[in-house]
Amino acid sequence: MSLVVVGSVAYDGVETPHGRVDRMLGGAATYISLASSYFTKTRIVAVVGDDFAQEDTDLLLSHGIDLEGLERVPGKTFFWAGKYSPDMNDRETLQTDLNVFANFEPKLPPRYLSAPYLLLGNIQPKLQKMVRSQMTNVQLAGGDTMNFWIADFREELLATIRDWDFLLINDGEAKMLSGETNLKKAARKILDMGPHTLVIKRGEYGAMLFRGDSYFVVPGYLLDSVFDPTGAGDCFAGGFIGYLAQQGFDLKGDHISRGDLSRAVIYGSVMGSFCCEKFGVERFRTLERAEIDARFEEFRKFTTF
Amino acid sequence: MSLVVVGSVAYDGVETPHGRVDRMLGGAATYISLASSYFTKTRIVAVVGDDFAQEDTDLLLSHGIDLEGLERVPGKTFFWAGKYSPDMNDRETLQTDLNVFANFEPKLPPRYLSAPYLLLGNIQPKLQKMVRSQMTNVQLAGGDTMNFWIADFREELLATIRDWDFLLINDGEAKMLSGETNLKKAARKILDMGPHTLVIKRGEYGAMLFRGDSYFVVPGYLLDSVFDPTGAGDCFAGGFIGYLAQQGFDLKGDHISRGDLSRAVIYGSVMGSFCCEKFGVERFRTLERAEIDARFEEFRKFTTF
Repeated sequence: MSLVVVGSVAYDGVETPHGRVDRMLGGAATYISLASSYFTKTRIVAVVGDDFAQEDTDLLLSHGIDLEGLERVPGKTFFWAGKYSPDMNDRETLQTDLNVFANFEPKLPPRYLSAPYLLLGNIQPKLQKMVRSQMTNVQLAGGDTMNFWIADFREELLATIRDWDFLLINDGEAKMLSGETNLKKAARKILDMGPHTLVIKRGEYGAMLFRGDSYFVVPGYLLDSVFDPTGAGDCFAGGFIGYLAQQGFDLKGDHISRGDLSRAVIYGSVMGSFCCEKFGVERFRTLERAEIDARFEEFRKFTTF
Repeated sequence: MSLVVVGSVAYDGVETPHGRVDRMLGGAATYISLASSYFTKTRIVAVVGDDFAQEDTDLLLSHGIDLEGLERVPGKTFFWAGKYSPDMNDRETLQTDLNVFANFEPKLPPRYLSAPYLLLGNIQPKLQKMVRSQMTNVQLAGGDTMNFWIADFREELLATIRDWDFLLINDGEAKMLSGETNLKKAARKILDMGPHTLVIKRGEYGAMLFRGDSYFVVPGYLLDSVFDPTGAGDCFAGGFIGYLAQQGFDLKGDHISRGDLSRAVIYGSVMGSFCCEKFGVERFRTLERAEIDARFEEFRKFTTF
């Protein structure tokens, strides 16, 4: 069933210990959509400038992504550049040019409005809330946020996530949002803020899912080489929501099991791991669904005892 | 089957965000032995001063630990004091008084020499090697080390671990020993140094086991409160070797499965998690075997998908 993804489509400049690319397709909505496209029909809502290249449009189209909601306006596309630390657990932002993204107001084409699944990438909370309120038939809505919104737009953010089914954030953000350093306590507080389900991403250390009194933890996939972690968290989100959309699950109902959600976390982890194997979105040019399912089974193999 | 544990028995002063204890029983051999005592007959080899308290002897004896190899000499017992960072992922050493431990030369009582299992706590590599060479009937031997020996006693250390079946170190030490920042590559190099099996401890993030081309990863247990992480890594070692000794496994044989080793990693993780629940060794005053098995099943529950 179809999924609407809202967020940034951008160009990135990235330097890692494995090399450097000055300009390549990036942005949260790009990574989320590429990942979710392996599971379900994905419709993007984003804005790009008139410099957005045809080959990048073509990559998204080749994954069957609906680009009716990809607005093109005069000006330049959002550009971000960063450099990773030698162990790639930290990165420094070298440049952020918001360009046309500075005035982004998500515009949903009419046929997007009844989509049952919604993934709100990390944008201003009030824009996330505005999109959520326009959707008429949502079975499952959730999204991401970041330290900036947690610190400086807290009330707006709380009013936004109150209506979400799930929140997907990293461990530092979970601690910041809850004011707790212990993740179990942090999760309990965040689940009281509205979302029924909380997913905490831990980078190379994997991910956790909390729902009610139950939780699930998976370690990260061990890659031979992490070429570029850019977009891995967004690909996780795409795999997570994509799998749930493919299965037609509804988090509100009591019928969804911890097992269903756990498998969604594994598919998220699988997509995040593939993302790191090459620079930027490169891995998605060749990735096949069969590889995804094979890696899912690999997760089972290295976590079963 | 019986296990010989060699290492430090000490007094610790510890400060964590939850409180402070000026002097309490500690030391690697203490934690390893307390943890392994739940699984198998444990015989300790260590040295203490004449200040070593009867109540501390009594705690070890109450766990059925053989203290014939616990040498008592004039002088003071090894003392260490440290303070943990607010998130308890780092600690600062405030005081290290080696005292009688400075001249520690492990002396194995005759009836220890034929024990089939040997766990060498983090002491000088040449002492570890000397103990290993005295044991006449070892089925399974391995141990721990630390950054100091890796950096400044590398050749001695390499000559020592060459004869070990397993090495148990943390992720930072694995990177340092191998010269690789990628843990999969690091593991491959370390397995070429001698041990058939490598366990990498990752603190709150869990642990990994590598053997041949196969590996197993488990996330850390989510505690409501981490009171004091001191000794958690040693308790992991005690649970790991204790379970293998209880089962009578022999790592050299081909008959041991990845599953057996994975379950040993889980028992290690279980013992490490209990250790953190109270200050120092306090948790082991009340811990029952049934609680250990219940937590083992809890690991299965939160990692199965």
